[in-house]
Amino acid sequence: MKIYGVGAADGIGIGVARVVKEQSVEVIRKTVSDIEAEVSNFMEVLELTKAETEEMSQALEKNASAKEAEILFGHIMLMSDPMLVDEIVNRIKSESICAEYMIEEVCNQYAAVFASMDDELMQQRATDMLDIKTRLIKKILGMENTDLSKLPYGSILVAKDLTPSMTAGLNPENVLGIVTELGGKTSHSAILARALEIPAVVGLFDLPQDITEGTEILLDGENGEVIIMPTEDEKSDYDNKKKEYDAKKELLKRYKELPSISKDGKKVEIAGNIGSPEDAKKVILSGGEGIGLFRTEFLFMDRDGMPSEDEQFESYKEVAIAMEGKPVIIRTLDIGGDKEIPYMGIEQDENPFLGYRAIRLCLDRKNDIYIPQLRALLRASAFGNIKIMLPLITSMDEIKEAKALINDIKSEFDLNGIAYNKDIEVGIMVETAAASLLADIFAKEVDFFSIGTNDLIQYTMSVDRGNVKIAGLYSPFSPAVLRSINRIITEGKKAGIMVGMCGEAAADPLLIPVLLAWGLDEFSMSASSILKSRQIISLCDSKALLSKVDKVLEMATESEIKDYLKKIIEEIGC
Amino acid sequence: MKIYGVGAADGIGIGVARVVKEQSVEVIRKTVSDIEAEVSNFMEVLELTKAETEEMSQALEKNASAKEAEILFGHIMLMSDPMLVDEIVNRIKSESICAEYMIEEVCNQYAAVFASMDDELMQQRATDMLDIKTRLIKKILGMENTDLSKLPYGSILVAKDLTPSMTAGLNPENVLGIVTELGGKTSHSAILARALEIPAVVGLFDLPQDITEGTEILLDGENGEVIIMPTEDEKSDYDNKKKEYDAKKELLKRYKELPSISKDGKKVEIAGNIGSPEDAKKVILSGGEGIGLFRTEFLFMDRDGMPSEDEQFESYKEVAIAMEGKPVIIRTLDIGGDKEIPYMGIEQDENPFLGYRAIRLCLDRKNDIYIPQLRALLRASAFGNIKIMLPLITSMDEIKEAKALINDIKSEFDLNGIAYNKDIEVGIMVETAAASLLADIFAKEVDFFSIGTNDLIQYTMSVDRGNVKIAGLYSPFSPAVLRSINRIITEGKKAGIMVGMCGEAAADPLLIPVLLAWGLDEFSMSASSILKSRQIISLCDSKALLSKVDKVLEMATESEIKDYLKKIIEEIGC
Repeated sequence: MKIYGVGAADGIGIGVARVVKEQSVEVIRKTVSDIEAEVSNFMEVLELTKAETEEMSQALEKNASAKEAEILFGHIMLMSDPMLVDEIVNRIKSESICAEYMIEEVCNQYAAVFASMDDELMQQRATDMLDIKTRLIKKILGMENTDLSKLPYGSILVAKDLTPSMTAGLNPENVLGIVTELGGKTSHSAILARALEIPAVVGLFDLPQDITEGTEILLDGENGEVIIMPTEDEKSDYDNKKKEYDAKKELLKRYKELPSISKDGKKVEIAGNIGSPEDAKKVILSGGEGIGLFRTEFLFMDRDGMPSEDEQFESYKEVAIAMEGKPVIIRTLDIGGDKEIPYMGIEQDENPFLGYRAIRLCLDRKNDIYIPQLRALLRASAFGNIKIMLPLITSMDEIKEAKALINDIKSEFDLNGIAYNKDIEVGIMVETAAASLLADIFAKEVDFFSIGTNDLIQYTMSVDRGNVKIAGLYSPFSPAVLRSINRIITEGKKAGIMVGMCGEAAADPLLIPVLLAWGLDEFSMSASSILKSRQIISLCDSKALLSKVDKVLEMATESEIKDYLKKIIEEIGC
Repeated sequence: MKIYGVGAADGIGIGVARVVKEQSVEVIRKTVSDIEAEVSNFMEVLELTKAETEEMSQALEKNASAKEAEILFGHIMLMSDPMLVDEIVNRIKSESICAEYMIEEVCNQYAAVFASMDDELMQQRATDMLDIKTRLIKKILGMENTDLSKLPYGSILVAKDLTPSMTAGLNPENVLGIVTELGGKTSHSAILARALEIPAVVGLFDLPQDITEGTEILLDGENGEVIIMPTEDEKSDYDNKKKEYDAKKELLKRYKELPSISKDGKKVEIAGNIGSPEDAKKVILSGGEGIGLFRTEFLFMDRDGMPSEDEQFESYKEVAIAMEGKPVIIRTLDIGGDKEIPYMGIEQDENPFLGYRAIRLCLDRKNDIYIPQLRALLRASAFGNIKIMLPLITSMDEIKEAKALINDIKSEFDLNGIAYNKDIEVGIMVETAAASLLADIFAKEVDFFSIGTNDLIQYTMSVDRGNVKIAGLYSPFSPAVLRSINRIITEGKKAGIMVGMCGEAAADPLLIPVLLAWGLDEFSMSASSILKSRQIISLCDSKALLSKVDKVLEMATESEIKDYLKKIIEEIGC
């Protein structure tokens, strides 16, 4: 019996089902009389859980790479947040209610705020928060935590969902596959599976209830397939597939130390997109040659007030140093009326994506938002190769106004002897129809372009990328989008500036040959896509491809283009 | 003392202030015992008010043109709405509350719904509704209605706001100017003033409280200036201005019977934008040569359920017949998650302007929405020169799907002998960045383009046109917008199809020379702008202008372009 889910971590796994049933935790609102005891018990459990997490994190570092340990390190950070802890303690005190109930209440509240944010990283924090909540409550109620460290060799882990704390002790030598009912490509289960290099299929909403302990299971993490009780024929088919996959993986690892050069010798840069300073390490570990997009929103979220210039400076500096002179493109604040940042006092817009946000907001609030950020960026530029990137540009006036601010700060730094990189590059996100149309003019005014395909598609197609009802129109293969990208690269190259791309399209195997042939200089993506992209690039003959890929500019429909590009990638042989 | 407001109706007026103070009406929630008497009194007052409105409407037809009388005719329609009347009556009965209170409640409710709609015409209905409310309540409470019919010659009417019923008896021979505190360019006061050809300045939020009866006042309705107690010098200045203005006006009238031809013999079409069948007459009276945009939303709003195919057919047919063979471009339903049409069951989108709307919604709801509309349009095409226009196109698939539907209906009509125009033209609104980028491809598939600048600006600049915080970015003079328009016209002409424009930019004096030189075939606008636009076109040498206006394609900023175009229009001499 074959069922289909979301392929979350590549690879073929064959083994025996180990079904993990999470004990459900129910919390009752109980009044307590000895409040001091309740609070001190909570604090004790908190410290204990933190210590355990620390241990798990160390165990993980041995098992897998450091990447996964960082998730648990994030848990420790969350548990150390004085806001969170104070709120739980204060509410236990003021309402005379048991700790477990207040943990439930307050953690749910925090998780809801994270979940409502548009940023994928923030949404992952919601899962983290719920994981912490369950662990704290279980410990208070004296319940056992699920322990996966003793699973025998040949296990296929079957669960509703996985949390970092559950998988912490998990031995990747023994677990040959992961199958979960919940989760998507970016869920924790998926991220963990990829970090541990265990094949995984998630989001199996129709996961049969009758998979019992010991059922034989086969899974293909690339295609999201799960076979329950496979036949001998199926097993031998998948055995062959596994051998192919393993060979491919070995090959891919070789690209880690190689430069990003096409078959015909065109050198490009493959960089990483990051959301916090810690992510920079992952990019380096994955063979990234720079940071193509550092989103600075994280600094402003999940807090009470604006981050100070110094605080920002420390973050930017940390990334600059970690990247050791490699380019680090930092995007200035891209926030607006759809994100809940109460202390900023931004009203909700009727059409947030067409609203008061990003550069528009920043240029309107120079003193409290933009100048401190630009000052922090300039100061950090003394410690590495930082470049400043302006988001949502639609007019020359915006570019000039931002550059004038930067120049004013430079003059003041010169006067006061504050160090910064005098040649710091200032570029723009090209992500609006206006910027694409004016690419030739803007290219004369800025040092680089970075094509933000997520927004560019949205604005070109007039489609909210979060609206499922019209998701069919949101595609990088839309002929209008590709024409726009072609125009941006062409005009950027004509003016002699660097043109990069930091949207998800930069890592799309079907698009990489197109972008390379058109002359894209920098491909910025999530760390996990870097090696695969480098491999594709090394197999491409950019010059020979040009006349072929240019044909998409005359095609009328998305499906025609996609089919055509599939043939090209097959010819290339990846 | 000079103050500035919004110029609402051109012309210079000098006279003496006549201050109109509207009695404020206060309504108390009173329980009534004799419900039957309350209801019958309400019904009596309603009938009386309708009869009076009918009379006023006839009086207006004599005084001004028929245009204004139609506003009052709209009042009669609203008062005859069984939904409204039933709701008031039922609530008097069920709650045992006095009529005036229920009128207040229900009419306010209706007005709020109208006001929340995005359509300007619907927003005007909110004012209508409030006007009706006040009149009904006053009559029930036995209060006098303001009567302006006896104002002496030389009056300048000064009021907080004007309602149609207040101005109904107004004699334009005697009233030489209108000055109001509230209102904008499209408020009722403004529309009435233009219809009666009385110079008017509205939106004078700082209208001094000390303008008393008899104060001398001078106003310039073109520039929105009001001078209170003008000096002799000012008076003689404005006297000269008035002479100039009157001469210009006489000249303009001559253009009514003339074709729209440029100095160098290029013939174009100047058409009208309309929102209901009645508006067609206004277009003809104002010298329009066709309908460039008939918005069909009105048919679907302010009702309980979908309009039937027959009902739609009658409306489309009415316009087709009224226009006597002149082109009538009818846009298929352009509605989405921002309009409150409860019976459609459309959920509110997070970004309505980038959402599930217009062609996206229609192609998704073929049976209940799109097929009935297309059938009605095809049937009506037997009665005049109807053309079908598809809104919000971003992909070829949408065009093909809509055309396939039309062809299916045609085949069925052929089979069943239903009359329609076999050569009916099908065109698209070009109003998205995608459509602009793909103009060459789309031009091969459709019979005409109509550039919808309101949305094109919005999507090109990523600016919600209703968001005041970023209104500065919303401009037809943005270099990106003008490049996009140039591209659309050029590609349309290359393919040999008609290219029109139905956004507000089509009537902008600064843009008309540009659009004409680039080859725009049809300019569609509100009826009141037609003659002025025809005059500008007749003064333009399109060939000589081309090299001049093409310079805007290389300019970097909106302000540079606007300044440059001002010089051009001065050279042309309008």
